[in-house]
Amino acid sequence: MLGGTAVHFSLAASFFTEVRPVGPVGEDFGAAEFEVLERRGVITDDIERVRGGSSFFWRGHYDYDLNVAHTEDTQLNVFGEFEPKLSPASRAADVLFLANIQPDLQRRVRAQCAEARFSALDSMNLWIETARDSLLAAIGEVDCLIVNDAEIRQLTGESNLARAARAVMERGPRAVVAKQGEYGASLFSQEGFFALPGFPLEEVRDPTGAGDSFAGGFLGYLDSHEGDLDEASLRRAMGYGTVLASFNVEEFGTERVSRLTRGEIDERLAKLHEMTQFEPLSAPAE
Amino acid sequence: MLGGTAVHFSLAASFFTEVRPVGPVGEDFGAAEFEVLERRGVITDDIERVRGGSSFFWRGHYDYDLNVAHTEDTQLNVFGEFEPKLSPASRAADVLFLANIQPDLQRRVRAQCAEARFSALDSMNLWIETARDSLLAAIGEVDCLIVNDAEIRQLTGESNLARAARAVMERGPRAVVAKQGEYGASLFSQEGFFALPGFPLEEVRDPTGAGDSFAGGFLGYLDSHEGDLDEASLRRAMGYGTVLASFNVEEFGTERVSRLTRGEIDERLAKLHEMTQFEPLSAPAE
Repeated sequence: MLGGTAVHFSLAASFFTEVRPVGPVGEDFGAAEFEVLERRGVITDDIERVRGGSSFFWRGHYDYDLNVAHTEDTQLNVFGEFEPKLSPASRAADVLFLANIQPDLQRRVRAQCAEARFSALDSMNLWIETARDSLLAAIGEVDCLIVNDAEIRQLTGESNLARAARAVMERGPRAVVAKQGEYGASLFSQEGFFALPGFPLEEVRDPTGAGDSFAGGFLGYLDSHEGDLDEASLRRAMGYGTVLASFNVEEFGTERVSRLTRGEIDERLAKLHEMTQFEPLSAPAE
Repeated sequence: MLGGTAVHFSLAASFFTEVRPVGPVGEDFGAAEFEVLERRGVITDDIERVRGGSSFFWRGHYDYDLNVAHTEDTQLNVFGEFEPKLSPASRAADVLFLANIQPDLQRRVRAQCAEARFSALDSMNLWIETARDSLLAAIGEVDCLIVNDAEIRQLTGESNLARAARAVMERGPRAVVAKQGEYGASLFSQEGFFALPGFPLEEVRDPTGAGDSFAGGFLGYLDSHEGDLDEASLRRAMGYGTVLASFNVEEFGTERVSRLTRGEIDERLAKLHEMTQFEPLSAPAE
């Protein structure tokens, strides 16, 4: 079924701002797939449809532990020889998300978006193992790293997450977001530490794309925020990321987010807020 | 070195209230060990010193992942034939913690503390596997279950934590606390869901006893709280549990908590509060 980082990210971010995904698809990506994006206002001009090609393909399954995806098949297909081509509108992006791809490609995209006021990067164990120097250079050129906590540890060789995040920030980013599956997500920044639990759900049907939906909610909100991207706005963005991820996992593929409304998002954000509040001091006894 | 649930729990709870641990020790538990407890005001009247016996002993190690303890040796020793004997003062307990032990013993202690306004129970995989019916009966007699999240799943056969916690509450407890290692802890109650991250530390020397210190901070605070044990006080207790656990892991054994002060505890609780706050609505643009 339809999936992939660009799709999950774009749908999640579309509730906040104009989104322009850049990337290749194959001939199997047809009118129905474009329609899912365009119905949500996603601008598909920079989606490059490769004649005779097939879209990137992943198949896997989840067992008892929904935090662990078991890959059965990965086919790069049109991503194998992908060279990003950005339209002038994409190059003028205010907020940039460099999704998980070979880090030298991420750097070339980053260089084309010189005006971005906030840029974030995702990556994976493959690039940490095979292109570490390029990845470290790419990380040094963005404002924020958004990866799984295990990847922050692997990247830095540091088992303590707080120290690992500091080591990343010493290379340039002002913020590090550690995605932690059902446990939620943590934000390390110059201003300190912030964490949110995953939104508790009694039905989790498909965790695929949760991290991409998180990134879409996080960066989509930041792009829509008119003031400074200060600690308060980063924290609120963490909340929107958490909420979008939670809707994404309720049903398969893009089903739930496709028919989501902004009202439902803000309602769930208010619930998440209520679930994380406490008063450190007891009210004085009467 | 000195450790064990009763020790870690009692030291943590001692910052809030009078603590009376009940349990057996061997002749190896001498004046120096009693001194660690008594310096913190812990009342050791119900610690039974068994002539010719040796204290419960555990040895293990931690690898890269500090969430996973690798057991090397466990010796029940004096716990092998333990039958809890409660003094009248202990039977009058206002708040009761039934630490991890054979669930029929937990039930016999619970029955002796009829006046407790709040009782909580910890357990482990061994009893889920070998004494499940007794354990379920014990859980039905307490107000709160405090265990690791994996144990809640194993107990209920339910992989979804929210559903698993609801299944536990349907058996009696009004609250379920899921301990989640460095990810923190979650509270399920009739009033809803609440979660706190682990307090972020750049130095974690010894995670042994973190869960027991959490329970001590949690229940110690509740015992000291004069008003109703409502949702607000349970949430604040979660905060104190998190803080005590975080101090415990900073150094080996009981070293850090032994010289802790109430001022340091409240200071860290205020920091934890700051780390979990966000405003769901942006301030209106000027």
